Amino acid sequence: MLSASSLYAAIDLGSNSFHMLVVREVSGSIQTIARIKRKVRLAAGLDKANHLSAEAMQRGWQCLKLFSEQLQDIPPEQIRVVATATLRIAENAQDFLTHAEEILGCPVNVISGEEEARLIYQGVAHTTGGSDQRLVVDIGGGSTELVTGEGSHATTLFSLSMGCVTWLERYFGDRHLAKENFEQAELAARDMIRPVAAALREKGWQICVGASGTVQALQEIMVAQGMDERITLSKLQQLKQRAIQCGKLEELEIEGLTLERALVFPSGLSILIAIFHELSIDSMTLAGGALREGLVYGMLHLPIDRDIRSRTLQNVQRRFSIDVEQASRVRQLAESFFRQVSTAWKLDNRCRDLLLSACSIHEIGLSVDFRQAPQHAAYLIRHLDLPGFTPAQKKMLACLLQNQSGSIDLALLTQQNAVPPRMAERLSRLLRLALIFSSRRRDDTLPAVRLQADDDALHLTLPAGWLDAHPLRAELLEQESHYQSYVHWLLTIS
Amino acid sequence: MLSASSLYAAIDLGSNSFHMLVVREVSGSIQTIARIKRKVRLAAGLDKANHLSAEAMQRGWQCLKLFSEQLQDIPPEQIRVVATATLRIAENAQDFLTHAEEILGCPVNVISGEEEARLIYQGVAHTTGGSDQRLVVDIGGGSTELVTGEGSHATTLFSLSMGCVTWLERYFGDRHLAKENFEQAELAARDMIRPVAAALREKGWQICVGASGTVQALQEIMVAQGMDERITLSKLQQLKQRAIQCGKLEELEIEGLTLERALVFPSGLSILIAIFHELSIDSMTLAGGALREGLVYGMLHLPIDRDIRSRTLQNVQRRFSIDVEQASRVRQLAESFFRQVSTAWKLDNRCRDLLLSACSIHEIGLSVDFRQAPQHAAYLIRHLDLPGFTPAQKKMLACLLQNQSGSIDLALLTQQNAVPPRMAERLSRLLRLALIFSSRRRDDTLPAVRLQADDDALHLTLPAGWLDAHPLRAELLEQESHYQSYVHWLLTIS
Repeated sequence: MLSASSLYAAIDLGSNSFHMLVVREVSGSIQTIARIKRKVRLAAGLDKANHLSAEAMQRGWQCLKLFSEQLQDIPPEQIRVVATATLRIAENAQDFLTHAEEILGCPVNVISGEEEARLIYQGVAHTTGGSDQRLVVDIGGGSTELVTGEGSHATTLFSLSMGCVTWLERYFGDRHLAKENFEQAELAARDMIRPVAAALREKGWQICVGASGTVQALQEIMVAQGMDERITLSKLQQLKQRAIQCGKLEELEIEGLTLERALVFPSGLSILIAIFHELSIDSMTLAGGALREGLVYGMLHLPIDRDIRSRTLQNVQRRFSIDVEQASRVRQLAESFFRQVSTAWKLDNRCRDLLLSACSIHEIGLSVDFRQAPQHAAYLIRHLDLPGFTPAQKKMLACLLQNQSGSIDLALLTQQNAVPPRMAERLSRLLRLALIFSSRRRDDTLPAVRLQADDDALHLTLPAGWLDAHPLRAELLEQESHYQSYVHWLLTIS
Repeated sequence: MLSASSLYAAIDLGSNSFHMLVVREVSGSIQTIARIKRKVRLAAGLDKANHLSAEAMQRGWQCLKLFSEQLQDIPPEQIRVVATATLRIAENAQDFLTHAEEILGCPVNVISGEEEARLIYQGVAHTTGGSDQRLVVDIGGGSTELVTGEGSHATTLFSLSMGCVTWLERYFGDRHLAKENFEQAELAARDMIRPVAAALREKGWQICVGASGTVQALQEIMVAQGMDERITLSKLQQLKQRAIQCGKLEELEIEGLTLERALVFPSGLSILIAIFHELSIDSMTLAGGALREGLVYGMLHLPIDRDIRSRTLQNVQRRFSIDVEQASRVRQLAESFFRQVSTAWKLDNRCRDLLLSACSIHEIGLSVDFRQAPQHAAYLIRHLDLPGFTPAQKKMLACLLQNQSGSIDLALLTQQNAVPPRMAERLSRLLRLALIFSSRRRDDTLPAVRLQADDDALHLTLPAGWLDAHPLRAELLEQESHYQSYVHWLLTIS
């Protein structure tokens, strides 16, 4: 039960768009209340002398008038307004800022490239899972940030004066998508990156995470085309070829690319390809947040856990009143099952994490209704914002939860692309069995089950007499072996 | 965060089925954890001398073994087991009960018909909205309860020895669905009801609520066939004709009637028709709960509010962390708008209640995600158990919430059948406007809006200069008049 005084706002006056994010804190997690974006294209109003045109200023002020109406409802100390590249370099920026502050009624902070990079890193660290030794890449309208970090601390910060809007004006000014346009854009970008590459490589990283519209557009394209969500150089090259085939910017058409993102997609793509080359990046995934999230989490003073995903799961358990004892009981049992078959079934740690995450929140559907609880669970997980989980991982969790009991929908398990379909099937089998054996909600009635896996055959060995003594679970297990047999999974019990 | 010790179980050994309901309390509302039902058909095992057959007992014990496995996890003082009609009258009931209690490890309470009626009334009072002066009808397998009451107190209690299983054996024993079968069944039922009719009529009622499988089956049939949810004598007669056309029990086929309910549907229907006749009932709606809910709410000691619906809305606000200040702001504004146009638009109190209920929970979708929040809200409301709201009212709320902003889906408003489509459209317009004007989340920025309605034309008058001073809401209002015009609703603003 929070009132207006518990609202927080982060505003980012970017080179391409102005964004406002309004959130409130609910049980340690952030709930978005409003999100307004206007494509102001400030960078397009800069001339060669870095003079910002009157028209561009006007567009900016117009947008801020909209923002200001909502902003007045929020305590000033809970508002952060930052301006980035274009206002950093415009020689008449002060003209714009003076009136902007009048409109907003609060200070606008023109942040340095390094400060921008630091905030982006914070936003990523609070919202993105996986190893905590990261390289973060954010391609903005007027600048590109490259940051390495470990846990909550950035270790190297760079902000380069290139962005998808400036590169669009400079290398795609003729609106052609020729091989030459891309070559020049890429070479120029590589020249920018080269001087900082050694310092970044020196710190090193285990995972590479991309923020910004370009990487979001890539994500949408890959989802639409049914690819997995890892961005690789070869995928980027394919998309470049596809863009070149289209010939002209206004004829650009790629499955999954929205109109809104199309204009600055080729220029952003060329910068990203240059980054992949200069930093020898294998693969990149999409960040859960960036600059605005960094501003918001900074105001809320939430700690950065070593493991964002476990914080997320705990928040979900709290918000949806999930029985945590039962969740951890199922988790322990699933882990023991996993251990017994992981070698035979070639299940890796990534699989283990997904299985145990599914256990933690498997009862979320009960918060909607007992009837069709698995379906409700899948609906919620598909749509909730789960910091630390990528879209593909969310989809995988949703399909494990939807298949947690009752008849098995094999198609779901093959449609996700977080893990190979065969692995998904195996995780599903382990989750279902862990749920059946834990259905009593008591620790002292968990039997010592032995699992043996041989390809798709799974054999359970139970203590003598256990089935007779537990008719409800005996019935559930018998039903389960039928369900599994319908999809040609062999389950035997002795 | 509740553990096994916060679980409650209610078991009902009925004449047709044995049921077990396991729940936990979450923020003052009840969350179902497990529900198991087995069609034991105990009544079918009674011979003319009221001797219960060994086979029937065996079926019952078998079922109780399943129940007992789950039951051991629950503190004994949080378990209620009751037995009804068949075990009330079976002369060898004690044989069955002794072993049943051994299996369950807790006492089985054979309750009198009056006690059964009282519990049913409690279950209805805790889960059913509308006027609190009620007639409650529950047609069980072996007995039929008729109760009048006011608020939380039953005022007259009757339990008659007729039920859908006994009437099936007695009047449809030849498995024919002839006119004669129905006539005899109805006449016999009317003979049973006649002696108690005067006492019930004397107390009187404003609404009539039906529990039990027969009324649930009727509800499902009416939903499947697109009818509104009020059960009337003419609808019952139509269904009887349809059943007679089918000729035989095994050939009974009615759109929306499930196999599970088919066998005892004709006999239940004949009893219900008799009740409508003898008590001159206009219409009946489905109760939200009955015997088992009465047992559960009795253990939890939750108060019965005068208005079940407002308790439900408050529970939903709490469980989904809804901003209650904003909800009540929108509610107040919507109420003022409603007052201004209710005469011109012929909106009644039923409409007002639905509109204000929608206001109270309109932000529930934010608990899932800001993106597509209206869609999430509709999903949750469609599937949540909302004591006090009928299925049609839930559907109406869901469609108001889905249409709370953005483009308008007219089809939704016409598909619901809680109020006429034209009324639903009007309520939707009022809700949308209340949300736009309240978007600032502050009381002091709500303008004094004047609404004038003339058929489908709605005119808003705002204080001079208000639109210029509030550009964000001015933009929202302009957009809103476009949205409304797309569906041919005229909205003008001055």
